[in-house]
Order: sequence, then structure tokens, then C-alpha cells
Amino acid sequence: MTDTKTPFSCDWQGGEKVPAIAENKSAFYKFNNDFTWQGVAKEAYKPEGSNFANIMRNVLIGDHGESCLFSLRYFEVAKGGFSSLEKHQHEHVVICVRGKGKIVMDNKVHDFNIMDTVYIAPNEPHQLLNAGDEPFGFLCIVNLERDRPVVLSEEELHGLRESEETKDLIK
Amino acid sequence: MTDTKTPFSCDWQGGEKVPAIAENKSAFYKFNNDFTWQGVAKEAYKPEGSNFANIMRNVLIGDHGESCLFSLRYFEVAKGGFSSLEKHQHEHVVICVRGKGKIVMDNKVHDFNIMDTVYIAPNEPHQLLNAGDEPFGFLCIVNLERDRPVVLSEEELHGLRESEETKDLIK
Repeated sequence: MTDTKTPFSCDWQGGEKVPAIAENKSAFYKFNNDFTWQGVAKEAYKPEGSNFANIMRNVLIGDHGESCLFSLRYFEVAKGGFSSLEKHQHEHVVICVRGKGKIVMDNKVHDFNIMDTVYIAPNEPHQLLNAGDEPFGFLCIVNLERDRPVVLSEEELHGLRESEETKDLIK
Repeated sequence: MTDTKTPFSCDWQGGEKVPAIAENKSAFYKFNNDFTWQGVAKEAYKPEGSNFANIMRNVLIGDHGESCLFSLRYFEVAKGGFSSLEKHQHEHVVICVRGKGKIVMDNKVHDFNIMDTVYIAPNEPHQLLNAGDEPFGFLCIVNLERDRPVVLSEEELHGLRESEETKDLIK
């Protein structure tokens, strides 16, 4: 882990929401080779009360008036970056599509590489970290309606700090 | 288009459902380099009343007791293969992750290549086709509860057969 602290929430955005385009129409989002998509805004990630650096998100599906019950986002974490360690009631499905990462989940640290797919169950403490020199990018699917993440309890943090599996990653 | 007719439905499975494992726990599905995932069954796709050839599906998320409101599947279409031309009330989100495809959607034919992402709106007639020599694979996200696909009306088929955009693909 470097000393570049880039906490961001992987699934909650504050008040600065991109206005929804209320059109429930089919749409084609062409991929550019730089991990952006035509017709999808590249957004900075700005959680309340935290700094961020070189973190971006694309909301591919969910902000354009779609009627499906889920949202699809692409997150990218720069070298040395990591998401906040948090939990929430809503589930995550995460698919690595760029670079190399690690996931803290289920009181373990998992290597998280291309096309590895993870289900993060309700109230599971989790964190995603860039484990390489290149950008680490992942797709993340969530229910469209979801609760706000919360930080871990002292007891939960203590458990992770004491565990052989996770102690080197947890501050 | 070759003469290899491999109709399959991209989002409906008949009675042969894999029993759900009723455990809403976090899970890590490690990717194998052959586009299978550890812990995820490779299933043949067998719609009612149709033949199939070299079509497979993996239900990554949705058959293991997960509580999220969506399901994530990986479909793979062999050379010359294509899905059924159909429509339904539920939405599709489709992401190309292997090979080269085409999508019939919005009365057009779109090239569909790596990481291109598509939203197929309710009741939009659509079809996915392998457009290359290698397997064509895509992730498909749907609501967990969804309606059954229906074939197109004669009027809809007529429109696609008459359109300069789509007439070469529609039988």
C-alpha cells in the first residue's frame, strides 16, 4: 500500500447527481479504448467529507431514465488508490475488467483480476484496492434503489486489524 | 450469415432450472481463461421447441440465493450462431466481453465489440449474432423477476425484412 490515500465510496454519490434523461429508450454505448464510452459522462467521484484523487466513475446504466431495477457503473482506481472500507444493506456485483486489484471481503483479501466476478452480500464489510501499476477498473452492478453505506464498527475494524488475512491492509 | 441455425433465447430458460442454493452469502467466482468461472456451472441453453448448437450460458449471479433484484449471466455463441429474434417487457443490459457480434435493435444492425454496452428497452425487438470466427461472448443483466419472451408480430417482422438496415439478417 502506498501513502496515497484516496478514499471513495464505491456505491454512493452525494448531492451532485447528474440529471436523469427521462427516456426509457434502447441505447448503444460504444466503448472507447481508453475505458470511456460514447454517450456516457466521465465523472469525478466526490463523496461527502472525503478527498479523492484520480478516481472516476461512469454510470453506464441507471441515470438515463431506464426502467430496469439495477444500475451498472464502471469505476476506475488509479495506482495506489482504494475505496472506502464500508458496508451497507444493498448488494454489489463486481467484475474486474482492467488491471489488477484486491478485494477485502468475507474477512479475507482476494486477488481480483480480469473477469473475476464477486457477489458482496448485504452488510458485508468490503474494500477494493488497486494492486498494480496500471489503472484498476471494475464494473459494479447494484439495485437502483439502495441504502447509504456506513463505516464499520470498532468491533468490526478490530477484527480486521487482528486477522492474519487482512491486518496488513487495514489502517 | 451462415446456414447454421442456432436459435436460442437469450433470457428465458425452460423447465430445467438449476436448483438455487439458498445462501445469501458473499462469493468469489474466479475466472478461468476459457471463459468459465470457478463455482459456476456451464449450462447448455435449451429453449422449448428449438434446437441448439454450441450455445452455452453461465448464471454467474441469480441462482445462488442472492438477494439482489437482478441476475448476471454470461452467454457464448459459437461461429455462425445467433439468438432468437424476440421481444419482452423486461430490459436487457448487454456487454460484449469476447469476440465480435452484431445486435439487431432499434430497427438497426449495430456492430457489437469488446466492452460495447447496450440497453435494450422494454418490448424492443432484438437479436444477437456472432459476427466472427471466434466465439462471441457477452454478459447480460436482467431483473430477477421477468416476463417470458415472445416472437415478433408479422407486422414487426415485415418492417425488419423491408428495412435497408436489417433486411439481410432477417429470415
